[in-house]
Amino acid sequence: MLTRHQAAQMLASFDRVLILCHRNPDGDTLGSGFGLCRALLRQGKKARVFCNDPIPDKFGYMIPKQEDFVPLHVVSVDVADPALLGPNTEKLLASLPPVELSIDHHPTHKQFAENLYLEADSASCCEIVRELLREMGWEIDQGIADCLYTGLSTDTGCFRFSNTSPRTHRIAAEMIEMGADHTRINKVMFDTVTFAELELEQLALEKMWMSDDHKIAVLTITTDMLRQTGVSETQLDRITALTRKISGVEVGITIKQRGENDFKVSVRTAETISASDICANFGGGGHARAAGCQFDLSDPVLIREKLVEAVRKCDGEDTGR
Amino acid sequence: MLTRHQAAQMLASFDRVLILCHRNPDGDTLGSGFGLCRALLRQGKKARVFCNDPIPDKFGYMIPKQEDFVPLHVVSVDVADPALLGPNTEKLLASLPPVELSIDHHPTHKQFAENLYLEADSASCCEIVRELLREMGWEIDQGIADCLYTGLSTDTGCFRFSNTSPRTHRIAAEMIEMGADHTRINKVMFDTVTFAELELEQLALEKMWMSDDHKIAVLTITTDMLRQTGVSETQLDRITALTRKISGVEVGITIKQRGENDFKVSVRTAETISASDICANFGGGGHARAAGCQFDLSDPVLIREKLVEAVRKCDGEDTGR
Repeated sequence: MLTRHQAAQMLASFDRVLILCHRNPDGDTLGSGFGLCRALLRQGKKARVFCNDPIPDKFGYMIPKQEDFVPLHVVSVDVADPALLGPNTEKLLASLPPVELSIDHHPTHKQFAENLYLEADSASCCEIVRELLREMGWEIDQGIADCLYTGLSTDTGCFRFSNTSPRTHRIAAEMIEMGADHTRINKVMFDTVTFAELELEQLALEKMWMSDDHKIAVLTITTDMLRQTGVSETQLDRITALTRKISGVEVGITIKQRGENDFKVSVRTAETISASDICANFGGGGHARAAGCQFDLSDPVLIREKLVEAVRKCDGEDTGR
Repeated sequence: MLTRHQAAQMLASFDRVLILCHRNPDGDTLGSGFGLCRALLRQGKKARVFCNDPIPDKFGYMIPKQEDFVPLHVVSVDVADPALLGPNTEKLLASLPPVELSIDHHPTHKQFAENLYLEADSASCCEIVRELLREMGWEIDQGIADCLYTGLSTDTGCFRFSNTSPRTHRIAAEMIEMGADHTRINKVMFDTVTFAELELEQLALEKMWMSDDHKIAVLTITTDMLRQTGVSETQLDRITALTRKISGVEVGITIKQRGENDFKVSVRTAETISASDICANFGGGGHARAAGCQFDLSDPVLIREKLVEAVRKCDGEDTGR
């Protein structure tokens, strides 16, 4: 594992950099990627970002003008596991140098790059990028500030989750001073809901499953429900967060159908139990309070039963770390 | 208007202090009140908080042991208008010295105390209390940090609203360092919803009124709806925030019935129009993005029409300050 200084020195020595984000991209991987990309461009270097999947429109403001070039160095940001790079990225990587530096904050990081800079106690990967830029003495402009603020805010549920640290707040203060359009960013990320999403929420709530002790709540979103309301699979953040908000619920699970035999599961937990441990039972992972896994099964009821069993098992074992 | 130094000197000279909060108390008035109270107690002084209305259970953690005494000095926190003290406070004040110092952050403050310390650009009154404690060199313990963090967080919608400043974030960082239980506080304030509240939300959404251009959304909550779902009038924060979150809506209005001829109105606006200006048409006030007013009328449809007319008028005039 590199020290911060080593990672900064390595980054500072790079030119023609390709930056990789994880598939199904969120505000933190894109904020880290485009924040770093913009910082490199600002130094007169060539840099661009690649993601396996299309970048949702709401993150469009992050994307700078990126010219095409043959990469000499490949860096990944917020990618905890090589499987999260995705098939398109893997195809691209076949003709490129190996990933030279991986910058990440997931405690479950599975090393795949030649060098790793990991701060497992950082709330967001964007905080790490900010500290690396500080280490290199690179200035931050409004465009970079917008990117980094986005990751700080989205990975902490707007400074609500337990991962939020004094450093998170201090970097947020800096980013606002450097011009981050925090109000607009938070409005887009947290305070925007469409009628269709409200409709889907009502459909899902009608069929919510609760354990007898009311500690586990499970919502299931089928492809039929998505079709009926016109909501896309990338618009389910609000609904994923909902179960855990219900008074008394300690584990909130959302089972989202992506195909006939493809269900993606999001788990959100209170302090008493680890979401990451629950998902590890099914080859998934993530953070203590928010994690995910996937099932190649066709029956959401069976998936629910497996998950509830895993919750009961973890509940007996761990302390929620 | 006092300078910060003068206000701090005045506070430091006080003993046997009664601190007044505004009626229908929120996290900021209570956080400022109990934060200041705890800081005074920590200095070996006598202090207690009075509020016209019962303090909601969720704020119970703020309340320290308070002994009874005859107050020599009266201070108000976060009270923008003497009318917001409420009848019980007024009755109590009849036999006490006049309010000697008012600490506030509302730009619409109507002076009623002998001395005023106002920071109209502060996101919360708790930030001002923190700066006054700093000015006096008084230390902050975990109990005080919990109180002040609560006001910072609740008055900014958990650091989401445009009033959030770099200072807000820096003080939040300090409060977390001083032991504020930020995760639990935010969970209680922002991430807890009961089944009954979700039910009420669905009832209200079914009858939501939208302007033809979809820029104004109005929800009406009648006493019948509250009775039907068992939700109390103090539990309507989530629903009040909902309208403004809907894609495209610039003015979100919630009309809440309190009695046959008593409707309380909450107005939330986007950057383009001032909530405070809209409510000023009906003798109300507040902040640029969040304000309120009251109607002694029996017909919510008439109230809605009056409000929509005021929105149209303000929309033509102002720039949203």
